[in-house]
Amino acid sequence: MIYGHFDDAAREYVITRPDTPWPWINYLGTEDFFSLISNAAGGYSFYKDARLRRLTRYRYNDVPPDTNGRLFYIKDGDSVWNPGWRPSRAQLDSYECRHGLGYTRIQSRRGDVSSELLVFVPVGADCEVQRLVLINNSRQEKVIDVFALTEFCLWNAMDDMTNFQRNLSTGEVEVEDGIIYHKTEYRERRNHFSFYAVNAPVEGFETDREQFAGRYGGFDRPEAVLQGRLPGTRASGWSPVAAFHLKVALQPGQSRSLVFVLGYVENPDAEKWSAPGVINKTRASRLRARFDCDSKVDAAFKELSAQWGDLLSRFTVRSDDARLNRMVNIWNQYQCMTTYNMARSASYFESGIGRGIGFRDTSQDLLGCMHQVPKRARQRLLDVAATQFPDGGAWHQYQPLTKQGNRDVGGDFNDDPLWLILGVAGYIKETGDWTILDERVPFDMDGGKPATMFDHLAKSLDHVVENLGPHKLPLIGHADWNDCLNLNCFSNDPNESFQTAVSRDGKTAESVMIAGMFVLIGEDYVQICKRTGHAKAAQKAQRLVEDMRRAIISHGWDGEWYLRAYDSFGKKVGSRENTDGQIYIEANGWCAMAQVGADKGYPIKALDAVKERLGTKFGIMILDPPYRDYHQELGEVSSYPPGYKENAGVFCHNNPWIMIAECVSGRPEMAFDYYTRINPAYLEDVQELHKTEPYVYSQMVAGRHAPRHGEAKNSWLTGTAAWNFVAVSQWILGARPEFDGLRIDPCLPPGLGNVEVTRTFRGCRYIIRVKGPAQPGSARKIRVDGKAAGSNIVPPGAPGTEIVVEVEG
Amino acid sequence: MIYGHFDDAAREYVITRPDTPWPWINYLGTEDFFSLISNAAGGYSFYKDARLRRLTRYRYNDVPPDTNGRLFYIKDGDSVWNPGWRPSRAQLDSYECRHGLGYTRIQSRRGDVSSELLVFVPVGADCEVQRLVLINNSRQEKVIDVFALTEFCLWNAMDDMTNFQRNLSTGEVEVEDGIIYHKTEYRERRNHFSFYAVNAPVEGFETDREQFAGRYGGFDRPEAVLQGRLPGTRASGWSPVAAFHLKVALQPGQSRSLVFVLGYVENPDAEKWSAPGVINKTRASRLRARFDCDSKVDAAFKELSAQWGDLLSRFTVRSDDARLNRMVNIWNQYQCMTTYNMARSASYFESGIGRGIGFRDTSQDLLGCMHQVPKRARQRLLDVAATQFPDGGAWHQYQPLTKQGNRDVGGDFNDDPLWLILGVAGYIKETGDWTILDERVPFDMDGGKPATMFDHLAKSLDHVVENLGPHKLPLIGHADWNDCLNLNCFSNDPNESFQTAVSRDGKTAESVMIAGMFVLIGEDYVQICKRTGHAKAAQKAQRLVEDMRRAIISHGWDGEWYLRAYDSFGKKVGSRENTDGQIYIEANGWCAMAQVGADKGYPIKALDAVKERLGTKFGIMILDPPYRDYHQELGEVSSYPPGYKENAGVFCHNNPWIMIAECVSGRPEMAFDYYTRINPAYLEDVQELHKTEPYVYSQMVAGRHAPRHGEAKNSWLTGTAAWNFVAVSQWILGARPEFDGLRIDPCLPPGLGNVEVTRTFRGCRYIIRVKGPAQPGSARKIRVDGKAAGSNIVPPGAPGTEIVVEVEG
Repeated sequence: MIYGHFDDAAREYVITRPDTPWPWINYLGTEDFFSLISNAAGGYSFYKDARLRRLTRYRYNDVPPDTNGRLFYIKDGDSVWNPGWRPSRAQLDSYECRHGLGYTRIQSRRGDVSSELLVFVPVGADCEVQRLVLINNSRQEKVIDVFALTEFCLWNAMDDMTNFQRNLSTGEVEVEDGIIYHKTEYRERRNHFSFYAVNAPVEGFETDREQFAGRYGGFDRPEAVLQGRLPGTRASGWSPVAAFHLKVALQPGQSRSLVFVLGYVENPDAEKWSAPGVINKTRASRLRARFDCDSKVDAAFKELSAQWGDLLSRFTVRSDDARLNRMVNIWNQYQCMTTYNMARSASYFESGIGRGIGFRDTSQDLLGCMHQVPKRARQRLLDVAATQFPDGGAWHQYQPLTKQGNRDVGGDFNDDPLWLILGVAGYIKETGDWTILDERVPFDMDGGKPATMFDHLAKSLDHVVENLGPHKLPLIGHADWNDCLNLNCFSNDPNESFQTAVSRDGKTAESVMIAGMFVLIGEDYVQICKRTGHAKAAQKAQRLVEDMRRAIISHGWDGEWYLRAYDSFGKKVGSRENTDGQIYIEANGWCAMAQVGADKGYPIKALDAVKERLGTKFGIMILDPPYRDYHQELGEVSSYPPGYKENAGVFCHNNPWIMIAECVSGRPEMAFDYYTRINPAYLEDVQELHKTEPYVYSQMVAGRHAPRHGEAKNSWLTGTAAWNFVAVSQWILGARPEFDGLRIDPCLPPGLGNVEVTRTFRGCRYIIRVKGPAQPGSARKIRVDGKAAGSNIVPPGAPGTEIVVEVEG
Repeated sequence: MIYGHFDDAAREYVITRPDTPWPWINYLGTEDFFSLISNAAGGYSFYKDARLRRLTRYRYNDVPPDTNGRLFYIKDGDSVWNPGWRPSRAQLDSYECRHGLGYTRIQSRRGDVSSELLVFVPVGADCEVQRLVLINNSRQEKVIDVFALTEFCLWNAMDDMTNFQRNLSTGEVEVEDGIIYHKTEYRERRNHFSFYAVNAPVEGFETDREQFAGRYGGFDRPEAVLQGRLPGTRASGWSPVAAFHLKVALQPGQSRSLVFVLGYVENPDAEKWSAPGVINKTRASRLRARFDCDSKVDAAFKELSAQWGDLLSRFTVRSDDARLNRMVNIWNQYQCMTTYNMARSASYFESGIGRGIGFRDTSQDLLGCMHQVPKRARQRLLDVAATQFPDGGAWHQYQPLTKQGNRDVGGDFNDDPLWLILGVAGYIKETGDWTILDERVPFDMDGGKPATMFDHLAKSLDHVVENLGPHKLPLIGHADWNDCLNLNCFSNDPNESFQTAVSRDGKTAESVMIAGMFVLIGEDYVQICKRTGHAKAAQKAQRLVEDMRRAIISHGWDGEWYLRAYDSFGKKVGSRENTDGQIYIEANGWCAMAQVGADKGYPIKALDAVKERLGTKFGIMILDPPYRDYHQELGEVSSYPPGYKENAGVFCHNNPWIMIAECVSGRPEMAFDYYTRINPAYLEDVQELHKTEPYVYSQMVAGRHAPRHGEAKNSWLTGTAAWNFVAVSQWILGARPEFDGLRIDPCLPPGLGNVEVTRTFRGCRYIIRVKGPAQPGSARKIRVDGKAAGSNIVPPGAPGTEIVVEVEG
């Protein structure tokens, strides 16, 4: 079954059936106000923090699934239906959902009535705009009843779903001038409230959920809707909602638009009230007035489109492969911005409760959007660095609202510090802005002890070399990038978290992956030192990098591939000597990218082993063979059923490391082959099996040993987005920011034809024309503005200028 | 609308309509395996700990509500219905739910088919038994399709509803011999699994939720049921369930029973597997075989009835007031056992996630069930004491599974230590078992530093007097019994918990309630010291009690009632001087019970003020007037909308303190009047307004200032149960355990007629006949076994003997 297709011209994915294998969602908002929206208009909204400032309620793992969100009921006589099919699931005569850049449009028809719902979060406004257009396709006048429902979350999403002994007594609303204000807890510590409004006189309203749905009623057939009348109750406790009833009279062929606004407002303390107990609504009125008619909505929509047009103009490709083009030009970059905005907080797999912004996660996510939002990337790097400890370690996560480290998870993930160097190096390479290194950034959120960003990078490097194990390889701590490789955990208690439990001193278990990272990222650090007058530090760092190379060659090579780690007993992990988990992808990716032991042929050998042992048609598995039993000394990795997640799933995040390593090793076909295996645009034919959205990457695809090999999970919020963009833009297409300019070094397989890349780099626009296929290598003939160039590093011209680069493949 | 009635002979509450104002539930299980079951058979099961060992999934705050639980679908041709009406809500031709003691029976009929569902947890077995009987009332043979569904929770209920990026990949089942085994995470750290079985050959099975409900399908009309066929999928990840399909052929008038068992099994490490990856099912088979036919089920049901018969035989009353009789003889005692078992963890208002066992809560709950389960009470007291700190303070909560203090909440609730004395004193008074004082009990769960229970009590007393404030009244700490009176919190951050945030040093804010507790409970401590040879300690304690009396008289009296507290600025709380919150119930209850300032008439004055200012027809409000604004210096108490919870709701827990104080003050009519105002059996006429179960107490009833005064919330798990039982059994009916015997001191209003109480006390059976009404007072004429007695303290005879006590009222 096929559920949709791409519309590249409109930059939309078009969903043609509402019963997709899993709700296929989109993200709205780019700054502070965010929404998730499914192809049935399900989902929820929050302000800045999906846990602490949840505006609307969403029920994860619901039966039936995805029944909360923007609920519009169209009642045409006895026929009651929803534009997004759910929750009533009344048969639609036509249905189309278009997920675009920051907006979603759902067009549907039942009988003589059509509807078009457009939902977006305007630029620079803390609200969601929902425009519902109704059309009378019949030959008679019609009076249609329209009901709109929003269910409020009592702000803290975690508390909202657990603390009923309190919550069922706190709900409060106000209704004024046809607007419903949700003000639970506003009377006390909150300075914020939300509201739901519509730009037309209402026939009735309701604010109590039970009055709307009916006792034991569901959202599929709410009692008040069936009866065609909202009682108009003021909620006091229980479950506050905002529901409107409008009557829309339409002549034959006539259409009518209704604009709904869900807004979030903060009032300064001194301006909280207009009278005792009555919200001061000045700001709310102002916000609402910005979107109270079609022309204003049109203008806001135009502004949103312009913003996205600008963001996506900075990197484009034109090739013979439409799937490559659409992913690079639209969806991969779009997903990168989403992962920047959301980190791993809120998706249809991440409940918005468990995790804040990960130190490691966001540092990698930034690699995919530096070219789009360099200023925001800079600020994020400063925020992240502030959660580093004075010894170079780091809080593993922090909450976006408070910017405080998350004590539930703590620190001691020994790869974390290196990602900061990678992120900052990436930022400087992209922008040429070396001043970030001089920024004052505290350690451990402690403003009293300032340091510079450079100090942070130095501490990051130190942290690795000050924590080496018996083989002079880096100690792993709780875990490295593979959160589930818990070599010091030894957990037997199902009630404890693998991520935080520790029972060993951590002085033995070592990570070859961190070693590989150190070699590659250490080189960046050396360059940074050299270019900032830290010659001695550069020398020292270079020596440490060489030491690490040697350590990997001596103790990190298993004969045919790189080892993964040494466990807490000093035994090998990811070795022929093991029964299960003989080979892992991560260390092979990093060490091959760093070309450790290149003179001995290690990288190519390792890549061949990866291909043979880990390659599947749905991507490269993280390890093989899967662990059949739980290994206390390995931790969570061995806890999953074979073929899932870290236990031999295709963990897409790391696949691009192999793509890059293949490029570095001069094998364009292999790199591109891997690129297509996990790229959703190449998997459209297997939508039913793949299950998740065919326009974005998923974190994991079930591996060969799972019952449904190829079934994906955890779409949207994954480092897969950023790393694939790095792999395809910097390595396969070969436009790679470096400290001194943009390196032009494509690695293109046959079949893409001549490829044109446009790239805005430090304000200068590069037009790069490559005669494909192209083998990588700096010796290749390159012409810059018609002249032969001595190097493939092309420094930028002045901002606003254009450079034409021609490459003979 | 009336939804049900009591059946006193059967000791059942009979619900006659399924659409009760809120799901009306019952509890199954008495030891380790527990279930909640609603009048629609909704609810869930867990083993020992509702958070960490949740067997089945339940969706709180669901729309429609209460759709998970024991889902049985009866498909009779095209008619598909549920015995409990929900989730299909197909119209029933008859419906009756009987909640009994540890079991629930639902009888219903639609068309020609009747069903009777009996659900209970057998004594001494870790399982729930569900017997479904189907009857063909037609004149033709019928073949009925029966489907049964259980949805598994992935053990940790908190994780289950938040961590989908992991959970959707972990689910595993086995199907063997028609039994479905849920073994998620069994491969690794868990030694436990659950199973669902039926004692008949099945037509088909299903273990994947989506296959059962259909994509985007609900439990109301599951696709597989409508199609009459289960696909038979083995779940791999996503949402494992256990569903069976049976075909039942019935001759006219014939009936057939099916016995389903949901079991929980733990295997020792060495016996986890029968083959690699295959659960060892020996123990499961054994458990299942215990309930695989009607006769075994009947026997188990009989055993359960006998257990409850025994438990309820230890205190009975016979009076002219049937409502009094049924509450005392059945429902109040039943609720007391439930609060003992559940603490505040799992109800339809408590999600089973937030709280473990409260130090203060369980110490009070024990007061209601000491006479039923003295051995278990003893163990609970030892467990609780082990969470006390060496300085006498205490962890405020601990988890039942691990018996470790809950670090999320911490300690510093300064009333906690005194409840331990009250609990231990109550235990000794009930049992005469002084050996509990010699038991070795660690502080802070630290087995290395043993102390005796007596040491713990001494430390408890010390903790109060070592933490006195400027007026020599006890410092309040985080809060006292009123969790919401947070005098040192000063919270402005909505993201923090009132229960744990602290910004003041706590050296000023004082609690008059703790002072009153100290006087009353201190007297018990003095008695304990005297009777255990601690004469000096007794003297010292007596002096401290007198000091505290004086401190209350000097600084805790507001002129017409007792003050509630001093805030962190030393200002009065609960005083005429305040604008809102002028009078609170708690200090008035405790100081009047302790008769502080009796010579000045304080107790009577205070009780009159309570009556006049706090009394409503639905009970006594906690304070008045409600706080209209948030007061940083008072905390959460001022955060609720007026009339709810601690902000002027009727917080039922404290009402019995006033009842007791009225008894102590010699006013039977007032005591009994208050008793009837919150007693659910007296509120049957207002079921619709009251909303919660009419057979158990609720924690809170909306106060006079709420929009729906009289609406109740948070039923079942509340200290209200124990304290009402203390008030009615020990004070109103006047059979009061004391160190030297049972004091007989009834305080009966007119209208109850002659009252007979039977009371088993230290193995001896008392038959107490009171000629009502009766004024309390030790001078009253009492005859024991026909002879005039010199004292109204009647020492017990040898176990097994009987004593007849006659009281002239």
